[in-house]
Amino acid sequence: MSDFREDGALAVDWVASYLERVGELPVLAQVEPGDIRAALPVSPPEEPEPFSAVLADLDGVLMRGLTHSQHPRWFAYFAITGSEPSILAEILIAGLNQLGILWRTSPALQELEEVTLDWLAQLLGLPPGLRGQIEDTASTSTIVALAAARAAASGRRVVLCSEQAHSSVDKAAKLLELELRKVTVDADLRLRPELLELDDACAVVATIGTTAFASVDPVAEIADACAGADVWLHVDAAYAGSAAICPELRHHFIGWERADSIVVNPHKWLGVTIDCSTLWTRHPDVFRDTFSLVPEYLRVGEDVVSTSEYTQALGRRFRALKLWAVLRCYGRAGLQERIREHIRLAELFERWVGAEPGWEVVGPRHFSLVCFRRDASDEDNERLLERVNGSGEVFLSHTRLDGRYVLRLAIGNFRTTEDDVRLAWDVLRREATPL
Amino acid sequence: MSDFREDGALAVDWVASYLERVGELPVLAQVEPGDIRAALPVSPPEEPEPFSAVLADLDGVLMRGLTHSQHPRWFAYFAITGSEPSILAEILIAGLNQLGILWRTSPALQELEEVTLDWLAQLLGLPPGLRGQIEDTASTSTIVALAAARAAASGRRVVLCSEQAHSSVDKAAKLLELELRKVTVDADLRLRPELLELDDACAVVATIGTTAFASVDPVAEIADACAGADVWLHVDAAYAGSAAICPELRHHFIGWERADSIVVNPHKWLGVTIDCSTLWTRHPDVFRDTFSLVPEYLRVGEDVVSTSEYTQALGRRFRALKLWAVLRCYGRAGLQERIREHIRLAELFERWVGAEPGWEVVGPRHFSLVCFRRDASDEDNERLLERVNGSGEVFLSHTRLDGRYVLRLAIGNFRTTEDDVRLAWDVLRREATPL
Repeated sequence: MSDFREDGALAVDWVASYLERVGELPVLAQVEPGDIRAALPVSPPEEPEPFSAVLADLDGVLMRGLTHSQHPRWFAYFAITGSEPSILAEILIAGLNQLGILWRTSPALQELEEVTLDWLAQLLGLPPGLRGQIEDTASTSTIVALAAARAAASGRRVVLCSEQAHSSVDKAAKLLELELRKVTVDADLRLRPELLELDDACAVVATIGTTAFASVDPVAEIADACAGADVWLHVDAAYAGSAAICPELRHHFIGWERADSIVVNPHKWLGVTIDCSTLWTRHPDVFRDTFSLVPEYLRVGEDVVSTSEYTQALGRRFRALKLWAVLRCYGRAGLQERIREHIRLAELFERWVGAEPGWEVVGPRHFSLVCFRRDASDEDNERLLERVNGSGEVFLSHTRLDGRYVLRLAIGNFRTTEDDVRLAWDVLRREATPL
Repeated sequence: MSDFREDGALAVDWVASYLERVGELPVLAQVEPGDIRAALPVSPPEEPEPFSAVLADLDGVLMRGLTHSQHPRWFAYFAITGSEPSILAEILIAGLNQLGILWRTSPALQELEEVTLDWLAQLLGLPPGLRGQIEDTASTSTIVALAAARAAASGRRVVLCSEQAHSSVDKAAKLLELELRKVTVDADLRLRPELLELDDACAVVATIGTTAFASVDPVAEIADACAGADVWLHVDAAYAGSAAICPELRHHFIGWERADSIVVNPHKWLGVTIDCSTLWTRHPDVFRDTFSLVPEYLRVGEDVVSTSEYTQALGRRFRALKLWAVLRCYGRAGLQERIREHIRLAELFERWVGAEPGWEVVGPRHFSLVCFRRDASDEDNERLLERVNGSGEVFLSHTRLDGRYVLRLAIGNFRTTEDDVRLAWDVLRREATPL
């Protein structure tokens, strides 16, 4: 173990130094497609190499091909954080290498996952009695939820969501051979519940915090409609769900407590390292009927269930350990503090843009995402984004609204400060000037 | 970062000490269902706790609920290893927290995954030109492969596999609403290709190294049949595929080079930490048609593909980094050495059992798995396994052959020595005596 202790110290030191200097690196990788591949040997080594050689190539070869989600000025898509407690927990997860297939192969994994999902449900104000499980990504969570909805719907095979719903809903519908119908949104980019035609529907996917604009579907009204028609309601709160930890933001979530299934990604806005998507349902029996292959006569009692009976995969990592570490090392107070700070920074940025001649905030701001553009052509806005991202100082992404090119600044990295947001605004104005 | 450096040192030290003493712990968790849950608080903390508190509860609360896959005397199901290079790489993966959704969000992740999958294909003697990707588990790999097969089959919806195939095939068929037909096996537990009725089949799943007995389907004959009928051949080599790294074992794999898709789990027998399942296909175009939601006119050239277009999930971890670290730190030679040693140990155990009056080897041995039983009733064999596992000294599992209860000893942990296998045999004989 002497080598492992030494190499482990090197690895931890590498990560610590990386986190110290990540803010000075270009956020967006400044390479061309194929550059990294071309710098790597075409064949594997015959003989063992020391771990230090891997570290050396991480610096010498891979580094310039990294886009840094740990960077405080990543504002693209949704910003994420691999927080220190989660990184530390990953060391333990890897060292323990627990194999979650049956309860007996890791009772601690199975039961800690149940407990941490209960904890998180409490933090988010979800009702008691939901059963939670951890998936890799929201894509998988939505597949699992819609597979359960399909099973419960006895023949109805239409899924409804708004035209602002995430592409993972399209993908799940395709995989499950369900017909996806997209419902028009209102001026605030919210699904219009009066347009839901539920006759042949097996599920509605309502989104709290859509990918493009973080808009919020009227979940309570959708829940009413679903209840009346016996249709499964799946709530996609992958990004915004974490914000429910703040009581003053709970009004966005009214109705989600009536959902049949809910997905929230703690790897998005709660500081958990990739991957960790949490999925709750009020119908564990349907999940089990959909995924369990254990014949009834082999089930040995309610207390010894394995999550493999409730989902696609048989084996699972000890992901619960990192969620547990994050919930403990931040506590409710620490996580609330970060979410509130991100929203404050988004409000600030929104005010700066709104007050600046030649710039415009697009749509209502929700949570920590600001959509905006320069009063100029789409081409100018696109060129602006290219220049801004090409600078390496910040990384933003874009979307379109009614065909118009819109810039997005999403705040969510735990290391982002007001200075970082101010720098983003400086870079944007600087790069906009010559256009 | 001073806290992180300190806590990181604690975490690495914890793992090093754990790996040093894991062989002295009971392999199988000695708890009752609910014990761990009952020892944990019902609610999350309000205020932050130090990481040392997490570590303390890992020792004080979770430890007795762990079943130790890192233990050199885990012989159940298939033995796995979280090797030191893979654990070290997980530290980096967590620290970097790369978000693999598009090429640009991590060119290094995308391209290193392509390169390491090429490397591994070379090591396993697979033909050039396959496209590889990393999934979490073989369950997902098989779902993805059969979804592609379904898409390619224009209406044919029957999947064929042997009655010895893994339950993940059942699960995938259920999720994809395909009709699964199980084909009878011969005396060596191999799928009988002459019984394949391929008229309405979209896919055949052939297994190299079945879960119960590690038997090997006659892949070359199955490939002939599939080629003649234009049916997709998926090869499940989740366990045994790693053995193809040894040229003298390649005869088991004849024909797999003609498969349409192949799954091998490096987290099983190649020392990669959970989770890492590798999936190759000769039809990346079909995968992409099945999973890509990017309209054709937005595709910017062959060189900038993202694996999210070839699978279920949009986001992915930087799993390639741990596979890369393992392939480099062991090299071809180091991995061959371990596979060969495991097979030697299995041969040894097989000889001991075969030579001992009152014991019987069941079925032909394949790879590193020995199936055996005591010449006694099923109940006696079942009781024997309970006693053996209850001792905490070793962990074995069981299966059934023609209704008869059979014990399984699977060798695959990198830390297992001849002494460990000898101790298993001692414990088995000791516990069998009073029965």
